[in-house]
Amino acid sequence: MTDQTDTHPVIRLRPKADARAMRHGFPWVYSDELVTDRRTKALAPGSIARLEDSERRPMGVVAVTPDSRIIARMLDRDPEAVIDRSWLAGRIARALELRERLYDAPYYRLVHAEADGLPGVVIDRFGDAAVLQPNAAWADRLTDEIAAALVEVTGCSTIVKNGTGRARGLEGLPEETAVLMGNVDAPIEVPMNGAIYMADLLGGQKTGLFYDQRPNHAFAARLANGARVLDVFSHVGGFGLAALAAGAVSATCVDGSSAALELAEAGARAAGMGDRLSTRKGDAFATMEALAGEGAQFDLVICDPPAFAPSRQALDAGLRAYERVARLAAPLVAPGGYLGLCSCSHAADLTKFRNASARGIGRGGRRSQLLRTGYAGPDHPMLPQLAESGYLKVLFFRLAP
Amino acid sequence: MTDQTDTHPVIRLRPKADARAMRHGFPWVYSDELVTDRRTKALAPGSIARLEDSERRPMGVVAVTPDSRIIARMLDRDPEAVIDRSWLAGRIARALELRERLYDAPYYRLVHAEADGLPGVVIDRFGDAAVLQPNAAWADRLTDEIAAALVEVTGCSTIVKNGTGRARGLEGLPEETAVLMGNVDAPIEVPMNGAIYMADLLGGQKTGLFYDQRPNHAFAARLANGARVLDVFSHVGGFGLAALAAGAVSATCVDGSSAALELAEAGARAAGMGDRLSTRKGDAFATMEALAGEGAQFDLVICDPPAFAPSRQALDAGLRAYERVARLAAPLVAPGGYLGLCSCSHAADLTKFRNASARGIGRGGRRSQLLRTGYAGPDHPMLPQLAESGYLKVLFFRLAP
Repeated sequence: MTDQTDTHPVIRLRPKADARAMRHGFPWVYSDELVTDRRTKALAPGSIARLEDSERRPMGVVAVTPDSRIIARMLDRDPEAVIDRSWLAGRIARALELRERLYDAPYYRLVHAEADGLPGVVIDRFGDAAVLQPNAAWADRLTDEIAAALVEVTGCSTIVKNGTGRARGLEGLPEETAVLMGNVDAPIEVPMNGAIYMADLLGGQKTGLFYDQRPNHAFAARLANGARVLDVFSHVGGFGLAALAAGAVSATCVDGSSAALELAEAGARAAGMGDRLSTRKGDAFATMEALAGEGAQFDLVICDPPAFAPSRQALDAGLRAYERVARLAAPLVAPGGYLGLCSCSHAADLTKFRNASARGIGRGGRRSQLLRTGYAGPDHPMLPQLAESGYLKVLFFRLAP
Repeated sequence: MTDQTDTHPVIRLRPKADARAMRHGFPWVYSDELVTDRRTKALAPGSIARLEDSERRPMGVVAVTPDSRIIARMLDRDPEAVIDRSWLAGRIARALELRERLYDAPYYRLVHAEADGLPGVVIDRFGDAAVLQPNAAWADRLTDEIAAALVEVTGCSTIVKNGTGRARGLEGLPEETAVLMGNVDAPIEVPMNGAIYMADLLGGQKTGLFYDQRPNHAFAARLANGARVLDVFSHVGGFGLAALAAGAVSATCVDGSSAALELAEAGARAAGMGDRLSTRKGDAFATMEALAGEGAQFDLVICDPPAFAPSRQALDAGLRAYERVARLAAPLVAPGGYLGLCSCSHAADLTKFRNASARGIGRGGRRSQLLRTGYAGPDHPMLPQLAESGYLKVLFFRLAP
């Protein structure tokens, strides 16, 4: 890789492209902004190239995926940068420095793609193990180099490649999960907010655990002492286990996945609080209706559904689904109790999600105060230029008696 | 007050008024929504009245200020409610219940106006003392009743009435600060985030301390261990003292008020960390320019200016001022260091403030990651119907090396 810059193909912006936005930190080139001559179109997906503006001034080193709408991603604004293991290690080390300042133990999202200078690359760390999601073609090509840099910087001994998810499809990458290094023979115990979570690095959703909710779990825990807690769409018990660790008298986890609920139970047992956890497998909407029919009441109810509005096309239906969640959850909250509602939909912005939630609470017959608006934790940084797309929003309400 | 409901005047919405929004929780009637006949216009400011919709259906008990744009504020949706000491005590008790769940010690905003069911009423608690801001005419009239209810519910022995601020002018109320009960002869020590703050309940800004920044102080503290910290527009040292308590090697507080800086110094001394605090009195912009001229660098810089965009008219100038703050602060941040930027302007929404901040950082020659977007703490609840007006926004950036 040593003479990389000499051999880099050159790609060029069209005059109409927003070179100014790129110079100010925007990290992407869209396909209609690039001169896509035969040579550019023939580049292998994930090729490293040198980007020039329409007047042939060098702008940096980019990764090119000729068939993607995001045709180029900025890797380094130094046009002479060499994208090799040492460059990758530098980026990972800088990301690690932030996480080591934020967290006492090595359990966090270590690399959050563009904002950490590694476009399309997500790495979650679970102690000595790490799960790598190379969601852009360049990163998929360099998977082995990234894994080697990761070991060099963190000392991790187990590396899993998780090649699932929508983003890879857009880059023309196949689904593929593999253990690149070390062994994974059981779920990993992850300490967080005083609880223990079981992360299944191979079979679980995404990378096995959702670190993004950590500050929101922590806030729920502050409300949980002595409370009866209902955690709907619980996955492995994110909110429920944090609440139990903070002194909840009981937590009921509802999820459609038996595997996720078993991990929640294992986590509760590992922390010696298995007797306070119960689980209900089933459709969340139907289960909330059934609980209402039973006259069940909880002091703290959290609903953390999957993305109901993953795209603009799905926005209206998604907002109706968020409203329905709120409408079904509100009657389950005891007088003066608390309700946490989450959205991980890019398309539903904060105002739309909050309005849908407030409408649902009203239709569920309750009045509310809004206590807190939370987002993903700081191990999920964003580029300010892409911050509109912050996906996770969590609203905590207190419902009137 | 016992036969209050029988004698309540009745006021009535016009047919065009949005009675539906009110039924769904909107707490205000604007002057053009009300039938303002001679009788209504003659009501004393702060009168209690019964509100009816245009078809004479009762909607609740309201407080009326005939000359205010917000002509009526919903007090209770029960049209038979009696607004007396016991009613006030009920509202305060419900507010207290939330704060006692959230905080270990009695230092918090106890009542946050509309969202706590007491329109226009702000109460901050400092242990056995409380500062009451009756910012609506009804509350000013009932100041003694509110104070008595406050003592009954909390056991506070000192009550200060703080009658300053823009809101009172809109209600036709004079500026007036008085000790209603007990004695205030020295600043009060307030423990928060491991630091000690000195709150001057009589001479300070607002109620003497800004509790709203507590979660943002806490986040800054997580970044502060071993750091050199610069706290610009420091007031009594909100960010600086929290950073010192978390292990900052030094904190420099910059403010235009000697009194505020002396309180910061007293707070640092009270916590045994006076030797790590330094202060610079002066204009924040000029001081930042001077520090840049000295080549000063800090690992964590926070700027928490006054509201630069308090109204829509002031929005453009306000956004330019926020951009300037960011532009002057960015060069003071050491490579890989952190920058926290705050806005307490209603008129500058999150997107506008974030864009102004990112632009300023760019013009200051730096690239950034956005780590966290924070708001006022949960002792500052909002009605979801008024949530657009959430005033405080705090952005934490990490600046590239």
